Amino acid sequence: MTIFAAEVSLDEVRQQVLTAYLRVRGETEHLAAPLSAEDMQLQSMPDASPAKWHLAHTSWFFETFILANFQPKYQLFDPVFHHLFNSYYNSLGTPYSRPQRGLISRPSIERVYAYRQFVDTAMERLLREHALSPALNALIDLGLNHEQQHQELLLTDIKHALSLNPMAPSYSDSLPEDEVDNIDRLRWLEIPGGFYGIGSDGEDFFFDNEGPVHQQSLPGFFIASRLVSNDEYLAFIEDGGYQKHRLWLSDGWSLVQQHRQSHPMYWRETADGWQQYTLHGLQPINLLEPVHHLSFYEADAFATWAGKRLPTEFEWEAAACHLRQLNQFASANLLEKRYLKPLPAQNGQTQFLGDLWEWTSSAYLPYHGYKAHKDAVGEYNGKFMCNQKVLRGGSFATPADHIRISYRNFFYPHQAWQFTGIRLAGD
Amino acid sequence: MTIFAAEVSLDEVRQQVLTAYLRVRGETEHLAAPLSAEDMQLQSMPDASPAKWHLAHTSWFFETFILANFQPKYQLFDPVFHHLFNSYYNSLGTPYSRPQRGLISRPSIERVYAYRQFVDTAMERLLREHALSPALNALIDLGLNHEQQHQELLLTDIKHALSLNPMAPSYSDSLPEDEVDNIDRLRWLEIPGGFYGIGSDGEDFFFDNEGPVHQQSLPGFFIASRLVSNDEYLAFIEDGGYQKHRLWLSDGWSLVQQHRQSHPMYWRETADGWQQYTLHGLQPINLLEPVHHLSFYEADAFATWAGKRLPTEFEWEAAACHLRQLNQFASANLLEKRYLKPLPAQNGQTQFLGDLWEWTSSAYLPYHGYKAHKDAVGEYNGKFMCNQKVLRGGSFATPADHIRISYRNFFYPHQAWQFTGIRLAGD
Amino acid sequence: MTIFAAEVSLDEVRQQVLTAYLRVRGETEHLAAPLSAEDMQLQSMPDASPAKWHLAHTSWFFETFILANFQPKYQLFDPVFHHLFNSYYNSLGTPYSRPQRGLISRPSIERVYAYRQFVDTAMERLLREHALSPALNALIDLGLNHEQQHQELLLTDIKHALSLNPMAPSYSDSLPEDEVDNIDRLRWLEIPGGFYGIGSDGEDFFFDNEGPVHQQSLPGFFIASRLVSNDEYLAFIEDGGYQKHRLWLSDGWSLVQQHRQSHPMYWRETADGWQQYTLHGLQPINLLEPVHHLSFYEADAFATWAGKRLPTEFEWEAAACHLRQLNQFASANLLEKRYLKPLPAQNGQTQFLGDLWEWTSSAYLPYHGYKAHKDAVGEYNGKFMCNQKVLRGGSFATPADHIRISYRNFFYPHQAWQFTGIRLAGD
Amino acid sequence: MTIFAAEVSLDEVRQQVLTAYLRVRGETEHLAAPLSAEDMQLQSMPDASPAKWHLAHTSWFFETFILANFQPKYQLFDPVFHHLFNSYYNSLGTPYSRPQRGLISRPSIERVYAYRQFVDTAMERLLREHALSPALNALIDLGLNHEQQHQELLLTDIKHALSLNPMAPSYSDSLPEDEVDNIDRLRWLEIPGGFYGIGSDGEDFFFDNEGPVHQQSLPGFFIASRLVSNDEYLAFIEDGGYQKHRLWLSDGWSLVQQHRQSHPMYWRETADGWQQYTLHGLQPINLLEPVHHLSFYEADAFATWAGKRLPTEFEWEAAACHLRQLNQFASANLLEKRYLKPLPAQNGQTQFLGDLWEWTSSAYLPYHGYKAHKDAVGEYNGKFMCNQKVLRGGSFATPADHIRISYRNFFYPHQAWQFTGIRLAGD
Repeated sequence: MTIFAAEVSLDEVRQQVLTAYLRVRGETEHLAAPLSAEDMQLQSMPDASPAKWHLAHTSWFFETFILANFQPKYQLFDPVFHHLFNSYYNSLGTPYSRPQRGLISRPSIERVYAYRQFVDTAMERLLREHALSPALNALIDLGLNHEQQHQELLLTDIKHALSLNPMAPSYSDSLPEDEVDNIDRLRWLEIPGGFYGIGSDGEDFFFDNEGPVHQQSLPGFFIASRLVSNDEYLAFIEDGGYQKHRLWLSDGWSLVQQHRQSHPMYWRETADGWQQYTLHGLQPINLLEPVHHLSFYEADAFATWAGKRLPTEFEWEAAACHLRQLNQFASANLLEKRYLKPLPAQNGQTQFLGDLWEWTSSAYLPYHGYKAHKDAVGEYNGKFMCNQKVLRGGSFATPADHIRISYRNFFYPHQAWQFTGIRLAGD
Repeated sequence: MTIFAAEVSLDEVRQQVLTAYLRVRGETEHLAAPLSAEDMQLQSMPDASPAKWHLAHTSWFFETFILANFQPKYQLFDPVFHHLFNSYYNSLGTPYSRPQRGLISRPSIERVYAYRQFVDTAMERLLREHALSPALNALIDLGLNHEQQHQELLLTDIKHALSLNPMAPSYSDSLPEDEVDNIDRLRWLEIPGGFYGIGSDGEDFFFDNEGPVHQQSLPGFFIASRLVSNDEYLAFIEDGGYQKHRLWLSDGWSLVQQHRQSHPMYWRETADGWQQYTLHGLQPINLLEPVHHLSFYEADAFATWAGKRLPTEFEWEAAACHLRQLNQFASANLLEKRYLKPLPAQNGQTQFLGDLWEWTSSAYLPYHGYKAHKDAVGEYNGKFMCNQKVLRGGSFATPADHIRISYRNFFYPHQAWQFTGIRLAGD
Repeated sequence: MTIFAAEVSLDEVRQQVLTAYLRVRGETEHLAAPLSAEDMQLQSMPDASPAKWHLAHTSWFFETFILANFQPKYQLFDPVFHHLFNSYYNSLGTPYSRPQRGLISRPSIERVYAYRQFVDTAMERLLREHALSPALNALIDLGLNHEQQHQELLLTDIKHALSLNPMAPSYSDSLPEDEVDNIDRLRWLEIPGGFYGIGSDGEDFFFDNEGPVHQQSLPGFFIASRLVSNDEYLAFIEDGGYQKHRLWLSDGWSLVQQHRQSHPMYWRETADGWQQYTLHGLQPINLLEPVHHLSFYEADAFATWAGKRLPTEFEWEAAACHLRQLNQFASANLLEKRYLKPLPAQNGQTQFLGDLWEWTSSAYLPYHGYKAHKDAVGEYNGKFMCNQKVLRGGSFATPADHIRISYRNFFYPHQAWQFTGIRLAGD
Repeated sequence: MTIFAAEVSLDEVRQQVLTAYLRVRGETEHLAAPLSAEDMQLQSMPDASPAKWHLAHTSWFFETFILANFQPKYQLFDPVFHHLFNSYYNSLGTPYSRPQRGLISRPSIERVYAYRQFVDTAMERLLREHALSPALNALIDLGLNHEQQHQELLLTDIKHALSLNPMAPSYSDSLPEDEVDNIDRLRWLEIPGGFYGIGSDGEDFFFDNEGPVHQQSLPGFFIASRLVSNDEYLAFIEDGGYQKHRLWLSDGWSLVQQHRQSHPMYWRETADGWQQYTLHGLQPINLLEPVHHLSFYEADAFATWAGKRLPTEFEWEAAACHLRQLNQFASANLLEKRYLKPLPAQNGQTQFLGDLWEWTSSAYLPYHGYKAHKDAVGEYNGKFMCNQKVLRGGSFATPADHIRISYRNFFYPHQAWQFTGIRLAGD
């Protein structure tokens, strides 16, 4: 998200920033509302964090990078929080052990909410009293986008934790309003070769890993008009996809054998057929919905089986830009209605944003000329540029105003607990 | 504990049983009272269980072994609890995975308390309406003693979980009333050789592993009048005890090297000297108190360093019996006052019960002629009779009426999170 | 073995010692003869050692404990060997890492044989020139018995290593001369209750863990006249023995599930039925031979399934003594002929020695009054007295003059690569 | 290497092929000659293989892909070898377990040499009798290049295995002839921006991962004229490079902390200063030689510390091509003299090939349009295109005619046992 409209008075800017701040902060608490104190304590694997930790860490970010630097005589809410809720910023002291986040019963959730309130009050005062320098503005933007990332992770992580409960509990019973009956027929969109501008700069917010903007030369290619569906993936399974080594990358095949994988991580084969664990509990698989929660290895093996390939992140971004220019691109307005449930695009448009994070074949590497910040905040992105794969597009769990075409998400190729899916490409 | 007085009317018996039942059940909840829902969710290692799980599992025991068998038309509170709160009784279906007990945020603690209330109501009705057969009586006795074991484990486990929180929180701030200024001077008690009766039978409750009663021939030996103190153990540390391989059993030495052990698990070397994590948070070490939370390997190495040895479980029991006959044995009444804080024995008596669980040199093996039950309840003790060591005496965290001279507790030699200590012996 | 006859002249003693020395040393090389330099390099797991290492370590023992102390101005063959071939004597410096013994391609096997020759020459000179003090005699006795232990381990370890080769190679093609057609009908021998002398002292050699000699009071019991056979164990398998948790100790059941065990470690289910890997390669299982290579857990589960139990080590020794007095005990002479192949006892006698190491239910603990040596040699036995089980009787791979009734072998309960078997007992 | 000269008669071609075949096969045996049968048995980690296995596997390649397909009625030397010496070709059956290659004492090294002779005789006959079709030629080329890869791995792997021997033995005492006194002063070469042709096609041999050839647009950049030297790397160490998290990628920093790394893997800090294990044993570090045996993480951290970066694989190849055109490029003839010892380039030329494998910042991914073979031989490269980094340039252990500018080697970023080094780049 980007909180500034272009030409407004200073007071209007203050008010816009404050409104954005309160909206984003409120949204986090809205997502946590269905969870009990016990739910918010859960950590089901080192990769995931407790909801309580997300609530506290996002406040820590504002306290550490903004209040402690910009608010004169700011007193920390609690000095031990500086250690407990540091995620991975070694510049700020040794972070509390990540795999032990689930052992922090104290502070209680009530105290974490008091922390949020304390930070919010201080931020509100800062925004009313302090000059809005570019540096401060940039950090607020970063803090809000950071909090939106954790909103999605909060859902991702609680889904994983609750999925391990044999009762398959529902995160929330408020169902999405819309119903999906059909997904589009698959069309192959032809994207012409040429030079495409990749990345972001300019006024709107972007993470440092989206720049510098540069031109990328690409041959022409085809890209699918929609994600791979459950019935298409089921055909892969039924054709023995998990037993055919030739379809798999070597490291992926080792994992398939070691863990005896035979289906996506949240699928369950029951007496009533295939079901999958969802945020609403265990449910029958809708064959017409996009298949999700796949590792990169699964996505790549499926593409090989289908005689296609995954797009590079450059192809993905070029295709999105090309279609937007042709007005064949689903608008962001759609996203808000679809919260927690993917919908097909309408009217011949192509849905590129907001369904699932789409694995690309690209390794997560710096764009040419990328430099990380010198400060602690420089640990945000750059140090993770090894061993991971780029995902594009945003999921239904990504806040709508957090999604953009140049956004580069990244996960390790074995990870599947994120809301991931497959879009195919071909030459 | 044993709930029956010898010669009373049937109604009096019913009332005694009910009173005992309600007292024990209430004590469990009393111990859990200082804990939040979040605290009760914690599982810090596979060996330990969440407090919420202890609350539920002890109810499961009454439901499974008593209500389901003796109460006509009894309806389970919730069938999934039968799976979730089964500890290790394979005869009753595959138990829920032990290392994942900390992931059970649902059922909530409120629902677990409702479960307890449901079971209590049903038990009360059963006790009022049902004939008190010997089989039923024995199972109620077993259920109550089982619950007392879990009372101690609840404290043991929450101590471990809270100790890993960098804030070193206190389990409860209600301090013990008594103060300890000195411990006794160490005296060596001579126990004559001869035949000693070992084990329990008769009217009072005992676990199956305490029988059959048998005679054991023992040479004469000496046994210490009290446990090893913190200052004695500190001398061992300062003499390089953790660096001298010759003091250690081979498996213990491997662990010392692998984990770079140099002090007891809850000790911390701070700028203010040695401190230890306690149920009241981090506190300076009182040098005159018994050293506790040692593994068997540490206990054995200390004994070797001191030129002594650990007693066998038979020597320990013989010494306790011998001293009781001489009336040189601290009475159980003392125990109730000392809750959560060890006190020295008074008046020349020897404190054998209720300080700390005392490691013996004996392997946990069946007494000659031991047979486990044929039913599921037979999985209680027998199947663990391998690789473990016997501890005797009970700790300050053991309910006073749960302690007895013939009681055989057992843990693996590397485990130190139990309230364990050292009593020396010699020839 | 014990090398001294009682009443002989000093020169005769020297000659006897030298003869014994050369015989034992030669036997080790005889066992290694069928192996190539490559075979002698193999280490298939940390518990096992390469044959080359056994050849060197046994020489190291004589060099370290005898030559370096008793031979004036003795020069070590190679100082680095002092580190490389120290097994576990921390008093003599940090031993070379056990799991990496298989990486010692240098020194070559030729150099290890040169080391043996060097030590033998020095020992021969020492025996000719040096006064045979009791201390020296005791150490030579210990060194020779130590070497005999490694003779057996050499076979145990090479069997394990070669078993992992998909070609199932034969250690040696020289077959045993005798053929076994039948084993005895199982008889239950009644051993009366009473006091039995346990352990060894006196003139003949014994390890320190066999003492002090003491009286043990035992109730009467029954013991089987022979070991459990392959067909009896097959009945256990076919009755679902590996699927019935109620038969297993808890730690054993965990292993069965973790490793999906369903048969003894060297058994293979083939198109031609059950076969087992032997020192002569893969061979059909002879149903009438004793079942071997079982863990303690398997032995205990079988006994439970059979409605019997394993004997304690005291019962085993008492039974052996009792039968010997009745002259119903197979003589040691038999052993020499049976090398590498078990034979049934003849003429109503009971075979107690030299078939397989028999698991007892006893934990490996010191006898009352046991004290380890103060010197490095004190690390021989005592520091292992935790977590292990006692085995009795010796196997066909044990040198005949190394076997005796009081001998206490010990292994961890999960280990099955030793030549182990089952003798049942009952009340 | 490529074995065909352009315009020759068919008989001359046959002769050239045969000569090349015998030369490459002989070179492998020449490299193995200093090793004993015991040395050739060693496997020091799952990543490495025994020398004996390399000798056999390279023969298996010719037997499996050529003789079995092209030689009528060819009989396998030994059917079990088909399983034992398959590296990772799942299409040809489940390969023998990689981590257990060190347990194959049988077949003996003599039998492996007999296998080599058998294959060579058959190949010689095939080359004399069979039509040299393009398919056959391509496979022979592949087989010889494959064998050259294993020549390098043989050295890499035996170095690692011998390095773990506390005696630090020498692989071979035949020293290289040349001496290195100085390395060049570091110069920064400017490479202009533009389009560069990347990859190989045409007549000469190349691996499938080097194609398709394509144009790559690159901005201008600088590249170092030589590799980083030991003294430069020592400055990094002495400046606390291994303690400064800010220099490291996140995954690299985790490894540094977990393994307490503080220097390159073969360096040893001794009383006589820094030494390193080499193929000639432990030797003082020559500060003017290139630093080698670094992981990608170490290379990247050093570059960050130096204020530079690693080149991409495209920059590396573009720089090499550019310099070759300017005739400022060390010729391949130099390589043959430098065997086992890097030499500085002379006369203002830049040494790009044959010192050490140079880490690039590029992930190992397929070039646009890459397709793997349909057959088993298609498992050669493509399935490894995930999680690895590209290295360029070849090392002193790479056969001189196996090195070329387009060659793409690949290893995981944590691996350092390969002969790897650092060349810096900058903008």
